[in-house]
Amino acid sequence: MIERIAILGTGLLGASVGLALKASGYRGSIVGWNRSEEGSRTALKLGAIDSVAADPIAAARAAQVTVLAVPIYATLDFMEKLSHVLGPNHLVTDVGSTKLKITMAGMEHFNQRDRAAFLPGHPMAGKERGGASLADANLFRGAVWLFTDAPGSVRSECAQELVQAWRSLVAAMGAKTLDLDPMRHDELVAWVSHLPQFTATALSAVLEEEVGGAPELKDVGGRALREMTRLGSSPYSMWRDIAHTNTEAVERALLALEQRLAHLRENLRTPELRNEFDQANKFRRE
Amino acid sequence: MIERIAILGTGLLGASVGLALKASGYRGSIVGWNRSEEGSRTALKLGAIDSVAADPIAAARAAQVTVLAVPIYATLDFMEKLSHVLGPNHLVTDVGSTKLKITMAGMEHFNQRDRAAFLPGHPMAGKERGGASLADANLFRGAVWLFTDAPGSVRSECAQELVQAWRSLVAAMGAKTLDLDPMRHDELVAWVSHLPQFTATALSAVLEEEVGGAPELKDVGGRALREMTRLGSSPYSMWRDIAHTNTEAVERALLALEQRLAHLRENLRTPELRNEFDQANKFRRE
Repeated sequence: MIERIAILGTGLLGASVGLALKASGYRGSIVGWNRSEEGSRTALKLGAIDSVAADPIAAARAAQVTVLAVPIYATLDFMEKLSHVLGPNHLVTDVGSTKLKITMAGMEHFNQRDRAAFLPGHPMAGKERGGASLADANLFRGAVWLFTDAPGSVRSECAQELVQAWRSLVAAMGAKTLDLDPMRHDELVAWVSHLPQFTATALSAVLEEEVGGAPELKDVGGRALREMTRLGSSPYSMWRDIAHTNTEAVERALLALEQRLAHLRENLRTPELRNEFDQANKFRRE
Repeated sequence: MIERIAILGTGLLGASVGLALKASGYRGSIVGWNRSEEGSRTALKLGAIDSVAADPIAAARAAQVTVLAVPIYATLDFMEKLSHVLGPNHLVTDVGSTKLKITMAGMEHFNQRDRAAFLPGHPMAGKERGGASLADANLFRGAVWLFTDAPGSVRSECAQELVQAWRSLVAAMGAKTLDLDPMRHDELVAWVSHLPQFTATALSAVLEEEVGGAPELKDVGGRALREMTRLGSSPYSMWRDIAHTNTEAVERALLALEQRLAHLRENLRTPELRNEFDQANKFRRE
């Protein structure tokens, strides 16, 4: 029933959505827009989109479903603008990494009588670098695609059907859908996604300062080092909005890790070190 | 020229040395000993060793080269014992993860007139779990095998030849040999090996405490989480001696990371966050 989809933002995630839709057998048309022309040209060349839109708002108006795949503040911006021009038979969804602010904006601007529907989404998939050129039709295969829909949403029958149809397309892309409360979402990803990222960034930064210039570094560093610093390649541009929109939860997680590291440091020579390893082993066994 | 090798400790590293030697075309005999009989039986079954020794000291005496592949304190123990019974035409080498204490023990007990030779070694290879059953003939392929030989070692001509022959066998196992000062070694591995391990342990432990029981955990955690906590599986038994014999360097590294995490936490909403990401990106580009 979805015949026309607009993807606003054809970076890694947006272009991968396009490729995954095509690979899953989706036969409708996909129009794409990207802030930089290079990104939309690459997405077009890869076959992730069928055409490039000059005007994102007009592209959304001409589609039934609009996928926002831009950074979080740009998503909030687009939501505000689109809410004025889209009607109740339109669905807007997103792929942002924090969900409380976006879900609240959805309650404010969408999901009311005579307004378009909004379904907040978050595929737990990505790479340490972005860009359409890294797009992958299998990016979402086996991944979980979270939705943090707000209770009490008012939707037209058509919009309700679009929500169901989009959920089916997400499943067709190979993802497993899961519904979470938006506040619980942001708390949980602070621990399992944002904390690992900021830890890798801090670890890479401190290693750059301490041994970045060591000539033996390339030889001595092994798999553990590569793995623990891979996410150190993630650019600021991908993480700024996350740090800004989930600050308190990330602060709590970082502080807890700092305290744990200090505890471990103070117990390198005591039997308490065993408890830390046992606790860590337990996490991995689960 | 090496016709008989004794491997004391047929865990992951010891048994992998045996397998890698066989795979490289080594035709001499390999006798193995392990503290637990199960480990030596597994190594024998895998073909990592040709026979199991009942007495490690007698096995070393009957060999030309003894490879110590036991934890660091056990290595220091064996060094002391073996120094009394081995002659100047014997080479002892090891695979321990910290090298200053072991290299100093080598200067004290070996590498003197009428004493056996000792060559301190450290292959930068391993897995997050130990045991002969995980042994791998390709474990050292492409890895660096560090040596921290002390200057001023006195060796018989025969022992000197054994040192060269052992270095050749290490290269034949697919490893790249590299010589480092033992103090520099311990400082460098504190940053690039021990810090990543203890970070993964602390991260896994804090996640176990905070979200270990969350029913959504398995669904929400992605590749980043798996990768950043893989080393959380490492057992205390593999890391205790490292923590005890490289304490000061590891303390410095942990403290530096704690401070870096605190700095990042205090700047989640400031432009300084960009500098942290840039610094981390720089480490990864090198």
